[in-house]
Amino acid sequence: MVSFESDYTQGAHPRILERFVETNLIPQPGYGFDEYTASAREKIRLAALKPDADVEFIVGGTQTNMVVISTLLKDYEAVIAAKTGHISLHEAGAIEYSGHKVIELPCKDGKLSSKTVREYLADFFADGSHEHMAIPGMVYVSYPTEYGTLYSKAELVALKAVCREYNIPLFVDGARLGYGLASKACDLTLKEFADIVDVFYIGGTKVGALCGEAIVFSNLKKPEHFLTSIKRRGALVAKGRLLGLQFDTLFSDNLYFEISKHAIVMAEKVKDIMAKHGVKFYIDSPTNQQFVVLDNSVLEKLKQKLRFEIWEKADEKHTVVRFATSWATTDEDLIVLDEALSACL
Amino acid sequence: MVSFESDYTQGAHPRILERFVETNLIPQPGYGFDEYTASAREKIRLAALKPDADVEFIVGGTQTNMVVISTLLKDYEAVIAAKTGHISLHEAGAIEYSGHKVIELPCKDGKLSSKTVREYLADFFADGSHEHMAIPGMVYVSYPTEYGTLYSKAELVALKAVCREYNIPLFVDGARLGYGLASKACDLTLKEFADIVDVFYIGGTKVGALCGEAIVFSNLKKPEHFLTSIKRRGALVAKGRLLGLQFDTLFSDNLYFEISKHAIVMAEKVKDIMAKHGVKFYIDSPTNQQFVVLDNSVLEKLKQKLRFEIWEKADEKHTVVRFATSWATTDEDLIVLDEALSACL
Amino acid sequence: MVSFESDYTQGAHPRILERFVETNLIPQPGYGFDEYTASAREKIRLAALKPDADVEFIVGGTQTNMVVISTLLKDYEAVIAAKTGHISLHEAGAIEYSGHKVIELPCKDGKLSSKTVREYLADFFADGSHEHMAIPGMVYVSYPTEYGTLYSKAELVALKAVCREYNIPLFVDGARLGYGLASKACDLTLKEFADIVDVFYIGGTKVGALCGEAIVFSNLKKPEHFLTSIKRRGALVAKGRLLGLQFDTLFSDNLYFEISKHAIVMAEKVKDIMAKHGVKFYIDSPTNQQFVVLDNSVLEKLKQKLRFEIWEKADEKHTVVRFATSWATTDEDLIVLDEALSACL
Amino acid sequence: MVSFESDYTQGAHPRILERFVETNLIPQPGYGFDEYTASAREKIRLAALKPDADVEFIVGGTQTNMVVISTLLKDYEAVIAAKTGHISLHEAGAIEYSGHKVIELPCKDGKLSSKTVREYLADFFADGSHEHMAIPGMVYVSYPTEYGTLYSKAELVALKAVCREYNIPLFVDGARLGYGLASKACDLTLKEFADIVDVFYIGGTKVGALCGEAIVFSNLKKPEHFLTSIKRRGALVAKGRLLGLQFDTLFSDNLYFEISKHAIVMAEKVKDIMAKHGVKFYIDSPTNQQFVVLDNSVLEKLKQKLRFEIWEKADEKHTVVRFATSWATTDEDLIVLDEALSACL
Repeated sequence: MVSFESDYTQGAHPRILERFVETNLIPQPGYGFDEYTASAREKIRLAALKPDADVEFIVGGTQTNMVVISTLLKDYEAVIAAKTGHISLHEAGAIEYSGHKVIELPCKDGKLSSKTVREYLADFFADGSHEHMAIPGMVYVSYPTEYGTLYSKAELVALKAVCREYNIPLFVDGARLGYGLASKACDLTLKEFADIVDVFYIGGTKVGALCGEAIVFSNLKKPEHFLTSIKRRGALVAKGRLLGLQFDTLFSDNLYFEISKHAIVMAEKVKDIMAKHGVKFYIDSPTNQQFVVLDNSVLEKLKQKLRFEIWEKADEKHTVVRFATSWATTDEDLIVLDEALSACL
Repeated sequence: MVSFESDYTQGAHPRILERFVETNLIPQPGYGFDEYTASAREKIRLAALKPDADVEFIVGGTQTNMVVISTLLKDYEAVIAAKTGHISLHEAGAIEYSGHKVIELPCKDGKLSSKTVREYLADFFADGSHEHMAIPGMVYVSYPTEYGTLYSKAELVALKAVCREYNIPLFVDGARLGYGLASKACDLTLKEFADIVDVFYIGGTKVGALCGEAIVFSNLKKPEHFLTSIKRRGALVAKGRLLGLQFDTLFSDNLYFEISKHAIVMAEKVKDIMAKHGVKFYIDSPTNQQFVVLDNSVLEKLKQKLRFEIWEKADEKHTVVRFATSWATTDEDLIVLDEALSACL
Repeated sequence: MVSFESDYTQGAHPRILERFVETNLIPQPGYGFDEYTASAREKIRLAALKPDADVEFIVGGTQTNMVVISTLLKDYEAVIAAKTGHISLHEAGAIEYSGHKVIELPCKDGKLSSKTVREYLADFFADGSHEHMAIPGMVYVSYPTEYGTLYSKAELVALKAVCREYNIPLFVDGARLGYGLASKACDLTLKEFADIVDVFYIGGTKVGALCGEAIVFSNLKKPEHFLTSIKRRGALVAKGRLLGLQFDTLFSDNLYFEISKHAIVMAEKVKDIMAKHGVKFYIDSPTNQQFVVLDNSVLEKLKQKLRFEIWEKADEKHTVVRFATSWATTDEDLIVLDEALSACL
Repeated sequence: MVSFESDYTQGAHPRILERFVETNLIPQPGYGFDEYTASAREKIRLAALKPDADVEFIVGGTQTNMVVISTLLKDYEAVIAAKTGHISLHEAGAIEYSGHKVIELPCKDGKLSSKTVREYLADFFADGSHEHMAIPGMVYVSYPTEYGTLYSKAELVALKAVCREYNIPLFVDGARLGYGLASKACDLTLKEFADIVDVFYIGGTKVGALCGEAIVFSNLKKPEHFLTSIKRRGALVAKGRLLGLQFDTLFSDNLYFEISKHAIVMAEKVKDIMAKHGVKFYIDSPTNQQFVVLDNSVLEKLKQKLRFEIWEKADEKHTVVRFATSWATTDEDLIVLDEALSACL
């Protein structure tokens, strides 16, 4: 059955599998000391125009968030996030497992405003006496957000300005970074993005890889003995080539950006199809995740024809559902969608 | 350069890569709810003749140890391990990161004897008053051990008897389980093994997979809400198909056992070559890891010709080194080894 | 200078010090196995009419919350609390330090309504699919709350009903329990209170002791090997007599209730004095903490005459401040307050 | 019954109780901002001739070890300790609860030699490649040790030299520091001691206080936001005066040293009495803990006459037991001991 359930329903971009086959029997050192990882690092530095950036690879997103946040925060610090942020809601308490609090601030359309963050920090540090509270030590945002929305360049710059003012890093969860950068609504290049934020990760799992996220320390150094910290969190893979080779491939011949662009083109078509059928949008998303509101009876019928993700109850009779496109979405998939909507509405 | 450095220097068994290619574009649900994972579970249950066993897949070995140990132990419990056990030495304190102590007991050739464990437990629980000490709540052993040695069936049964006496589980780290079961010295079938121990994992990373370990709860149920516990430790992969498909392949057509057997045949040949050249064995290992003692000057010369692993200093003039074979070792590799030894000795 | 800063500005009720002197040289076993602790346990069971309750003593409130919550929650569980709850805000992330998330729900006047909790739990468990979220495993409320307010018996019963429905315990932070039970607004006896909730603690530090909180497991058993769990959190005192003797004294001759009553009588007088001077109340508190709104210029003058606690900014020109009474507040203190207000307003 | 069970069987030195009574109703700020704590800090700095040392007070020993070690270690670091060290054995895994490994090294009579530590560190850092192991980041020793023995000045200096060489701090658990410094075998003043080690604590609980340990950062600064780190570990007491006043008293008029001396004089007499009766010493301890080997039948009879601590089984027929003296031991206690031994041997 055709699936718009998520952007991780299919395997890897075929070029990645080809490279697996080509390199399979070449012996390489383990734990990220292989030549593909070295090459991937270089290509990412080049793509972000950050020749000195530390770049490290981790298997999954929650793991990456936990590793980055818990190694950068000091013992007594907590991380600020949007109330709907991935670390706030959907990581089963992984940040807390690492011993740190997530300070959840109000947000709009998944976005945390610099105003909200500044007010929180100003209040917190106003009189220097909040020693009985977890001390804010980082700001975490997602780009795109969990609702598919994007921060403008001005918004990111403003967030970074607050962070700089309070001397704490700005960390961006880029699980779907490619889809953000490829959006028509995006007013940033990867280089500009890397210049603004302190540390971010480039999502692989949702953008063409079987697994893997690339952490880029664009404006601060990676923590000392980072490999040991990764290891003790169970996050070090023996065959580092698995991650290195995938990112080496994604960052060759502009592949990462091209397949991201494809997903966005497909998402625009999904929007058009939805609009044509009069489906109501829950939020205006310029990226690969589209959130729409379906009548529950329509939803039941549609479930028989294709896969999508139930997001949340809208009201007694309606449900918010998510349709995601990816590097693997095809025009045939869109035809199925169009026909299914015709049949159910 | 030919490498005997470890059993994770190469990619995956070619059959795995073929399956990746064949299934790549078939949409599947995430997080282990895909059909390959379901099939892999069934095949592993069948191979172990444990039709009701819970089977779960995790990316790496340290992660698996940490997940299993920290979810099975109660708050106040610690895990008993050999002083040279993987969790004692080479996981950078991952068990401690999860909040639990590793009680390191003396061992011989990497093996923990039931006598040592029984004495420890008997002393500990003798007068019921050790409330100021971490309470032993599990026994951890590796099969094969970190030195390539194997427990006999009688030794495993004896360890399990102690565990049963004190009502604590016996957990076996099977990072190289295939190589253990394929050894001529092994007097156990997988079924017998699964009958004796409470929970174990079947290593994939070192036995033909790109990554992945299969936890088998053969004599106890998996912890409640295990998926959530895995998630919060950052150990849940979005594309569960990555793990499921690999194990589905390894447990089809006896592949796991055949490639393990191949590595053992190669290891026996390595032993013969070493013996022919008069190289001194550090330990008598019946599995795929061979530990030998080299004169430091020989070592330096040999390093120019092939890759192997420096293990530890033997004395001022000698070093213990490891030669590992794997599913990927070829007869050509052995010729290179033979010639290299001829040239250097 | 006279202080209304908090209810922990003075030492211990004089009767406690007398008992220290009387018993000082009598040898007693350590770690809570002394006879005073045994006697205190019995007296508390008697006061709560819970003859079988487990009763344990801990030095401080944050420590007690952390010990109780982290030993009762399962690995994958989180605790629900009011957004203004002590564990949410003022314990520097101690619950998170223990690895668990605090799910902060909206509240009013410091109180969490059963409706809010029921809606959250109903949504959470609606479709059984929230495996990527921390699973709610306990409800925490404070009695009195951090704003001095009280749950009515009906409100507590309703909270407990939700907890029972979802099979999770209701834990009450009673750092100021005495002041709550002694309030004119309280419609509960200690016995009724203990019947409703599952586990609670009776605050000593703020109600006449030098330190110490008594955990009462009124409707569930204490966790297995609780002493070991307390020890590993650094919360076990060698001279358990220090805690036992204080609670033994507080629960002799109705002392705990009498000194609590005294604080409430004093708080009522504080309210009258405030009202007489036209001071605006921030919240209507029936217990020993009174929150009022002061003009910043008045505040500055008043600070020269007595001590009180700055709570939070009300607006640019006004500040919320707290005046707390305790077992140690005297009529002379009230005269000073009255005169100070006369002079400053 | 007369007790030699431990040095924490009785209350506090009477002078402490007098001071409690004298100061009881004087209002003081909480959390260690009271004047007694300030005064105690100054007196300790003076006693150690360390005018700039940070001094902080914590309730108990395990808690102090956990707070100091887990705030000073970096994420990836572990602490080195003697196999028989308090943190290795008798703190129920508190260091591991904080996420860090205790590297247990062989020791003699409870003492860790600089040779053992140097060899471990030299091996560890020999080739800079131990990134898969917890990295040693501190050395912990007890003075006196858990067996009552003492490091000589030369031995401590040698330990510190190794630490300096590897740039890691030397932390000394001084739960019984007074008894160590008062021993005839001690060749160190408190000042010399404070000069050598980096951070240590002065035990109060076992040396005349009801509770309390004073951490002295003699050669490094306390961690940033230490109060917040203490708070989140549940180790901050609201009525800091409880700790401050006790140490202020102990460090007035040489009291700490005098009562320590008294315990040593009593211990010497205990040794004489034991020797007179031909009791066999398990270890030659120059401090307040005496370990002797008793025939089990003698032990049973002696238990009827006085209290002491069963330490461990010596062999089938003999048991190691501990007799501890303290500031509170009297000549009458010694007479009871002498008579009891006469009657039982």
